[in-house]
Amino acid sequence: MLIVQKYGGTSVGDLDKIANVAKKVAKTKKEGNSIIVVVSAMSGETNKLIGYAKHFSKIPAKREMDMLLSSGERVTASLLSIALQEMGINAVAMTGRQAGIVTNSSHTTARIEAIETKYMQKEIDSGKVIVVAGFQGVSEDGIVTTLGRGGSDLSAVAIAGALNADVCEIYSDVDGIYTTDPRIEPKAKKLDMISYDEMLELASLGAKVLQNRSVELAKKLNVKLYAKSTFDENSTGTLITEEENIMEKPIVSGIALDKNQARVSIMGVVDRPGIAGEIFEALAKGDINVDMIIQTTGHNSQTNMDFTVPENELEETKSVMDKLSNDYSSVEYDKAVVKVSIVGVGMKSHSGVASTAFKTLANENINIMMISTSEIKISMIVEDKYSELVVKALHSAYELDK
Amino acid sequence: MLIVQKYGGTSVGDLDKIANVAKKVAKTKKEGNSIIVVVSAMSGETNKLIGYAKHFSKIPAKREMDMLLSSGERVTASLLSIALQEMGINAVAMTGRQAGIVTNSSHTTARIEAIETKYMQKEIDSGKVIVVAGFQGVSEDGIVTTLGRGGSDLSAVAIAGALNADVCEIYSDVDGIYTTDPRIEPKAKKLDMISYDEMLELASLGAKVLQNRSVELAKKLNVKLYAKSTFDENSTGTLITEEENIMEKPIVSGIALDKNQARVSIMGVVDRPGIAGEIFEALAKGDINVDMIIQTTGHNSQTNMDFTVPENELEETKSVMDKLSNDYSSVEYDKAVVKVSIVGVGMKSHSGVASTAFKTLANENINIMMISTSEIKISMIVEDKYSELVVKALHSAYELDK
Repeated sequence: MLIVQKYGGTSVGDLDKIANVAKKVAKTKKEGNSIIVVVSAMSGETNKLIGYAKHFSKIPAKREMDMLLSSGERVTASLLSIALQEMGINAVAMTGRQAGIVTNSSHTTARIEAIETKYMQKEIDSGKVIVVAGFQGVSEDGIVTTLGRGGSDLSAVAIAGALNADVCEIYSDVDGIYTTDPRIEPKAKKLDMISYDEMLELASLGAKVLQNRSVELAKKLNVKLYAKSTFDENSTGTLITEEENIMEKPIVSGIALDKNQARVSIMGVVDRPGIAGEIFEALAKGDINVDMIIQTTGHNSQTNMDFTVPENELEETKSVMDKLSNDYSSVEYDKAVVKVSIVGVGMKSHSGVASTAFKTLANENINIMMISTSEIKISMIVEDKYSELVVKALHSAYELDK
Repeated sequence: MLIVQKYGGTSVGDLDKIANVAKKVAKTKKEGNSIIVVVSAMSGETNKLIGYAKHFSKIPAKREMDMLLSSGERVTASLLSIALQEMGINAVAMTGRQAGIVTNSSHTTARIEAIETKYMQKEIDSGKVIVVAGFQGVSEDGIVTTLGRGGSDLSAVAIAGALNADVCEIYSDVDGIYTTDPRIEPKAKKLDMISYDEMLELASLGAKVLQNRSVELAKKLNVKLYAKSTFDENSTGTLITEEENIMEKPIVSGIALDKNQARVSIMGVVDRPGIAGEIFEALAKGDINVDMIIQTTGHNSQTNMDFTVPENELEETKSVMDKLSNDYSSVEYDKAVVKVSIVGVGMKSHSGVASTAFKTLANENINIMMISTSEIKISMIVEDKYSELVVKALHSAYELDK
């Protein structure tokens, strides 16, 4: 098998942990596999370097940030390669450039445009374990770039796709994807499999394990993705794959909670054609990610409009709304809300999933402020004080603890 | 003027010191100069990274060491560039590769083979200050290399030579070259100028300021080299230049002390043609740097031979000598010796320099164990307990404190 393994910052957090990773890699190699290992910077390193840069400038130049931050992954990659060699494993460390990862020139948030696989292929063909510094590439004009938060996952998935690897294993200190956040519901169960689309909808559950960009890329390149634990030897992890590969499709796979939500309620919106378009275009131009939208008819040819935005984009939202003040009579903002989502591919073919949710919340006397549904997801906005109660009640209602 | 400035590890040892360097660079830029700044890793960083590697392997792979160690200079270069930009200076950070520094493939001790100046020239032409990560380059097959100890000095000199810079300033925490080590003789005076050849002979005096490889390269490329202090605003430093540029040539420029010496005395060497050649060839093959050699005639067609080696190569020397034991009757080793050297280009045209040295030591009742002379140097081996006494006596005899 050709396996791509990615180890995050906490997995390579100190020298002993790097030694532990070397052992795991050596074991996989000795089982007869070809391996490419992608590593992050040792945990804390990237933040330390960002702190250094911020000492000099509030908004440091992005090209320089890329040269700065890409150094952390290089340190880990060379150390892991040295550790492997000491164990008698033929290993070679490669920077993003040496691995052939070509990106566009958007420094600090570069997109991978191509991977010239010949450099890695040559080393694999000669039986070497390749250790690639994650999170980085090189632009066409030869300057180091980085891929943004979660960039090492992206490196791993892109490499797995380009080399047609059998599997891409993302190692962290969490042993997979759970039916809900175990800190809220201790009865949460680890999922053995989940589809790409479900994983994307359950983003908040996977936040500590994999970021959506990597899942999207894995889906696009059809990379079999495993989320596994570095520290639990027996971790079987969660396989994230195509829906067709999942034989027994659960109706509901998981319950996600998103606390980073704020509700904006606009009252007395002037009722003329195109008004909604104008408001949301202005928000989009302000780089604000509007999530759920509800429009209700008011009186005197005016309507009310509710939508949610990420809580950390609320200030920006307010300044956009202030500029549009001629278009409505009043606006209210509410940060004390959360979004609870029920996700499952089985919903497509099962009815009654939504009504179970509504009944469950009604039984608890919880008011649902907003609802939106997609083929595989039902999301509801509720008061944040009910967060835990809602998650637990739904987790139980869909029998996810069974 | 086109100026290359190099700042060593202690000059960029922490964020405040990097800010201080930024101020110095900005000042030089605002005076109307074009500047390329070459930086080392923050002091302690390189040793920290070496420590990490040694945690995994006594002899870590050199290619991996180069990827590991080159990261330190990249951090400093990007931070200094960010600091300069924040001060309104148009700056750009470059890795060794981006600066066009091409080396051979001798990882950890690479030699610079060429500098493709077009990348730096373009940035200079557009008025930018370039901050280059020192100590590193790239081999022809595209792999990061490092230049060995003192490598950032070498980067600076090579860049100054390739771009035909007006001057190359090497900044450290020492404000130039002294007539002797001020820790031994507080009356030591800073030299305003010194020739390349004298500097090479005074290596031990310059050890903390510049390494011989850089001086040799500066001589070859005819680069005007200044050793200056980062921290003393009024430091005029020492200019290291061609002998022809030094108008008033001092008879003696300085007194150097080399404590890293051991004496090997071979008694009863079989007196046949080629025997000396055999012994020194065997030592050369063992990578032992033999320094001074003296041969004296013994009796019974046997001779005695004395030579010195660096003290830290003495164990290796012993094992070579053991293998040659058929060629002599006995051998003695003496680590309790030092080499004192009197250096000056004026010696060529002045007689009596050597006799002053011999008289001075005779007055102090110090026995001279070995003597060797070159056009611009007189070296003597004495017992190490006399080190300070000899240096002070000679410093005074040649009136270097005046």
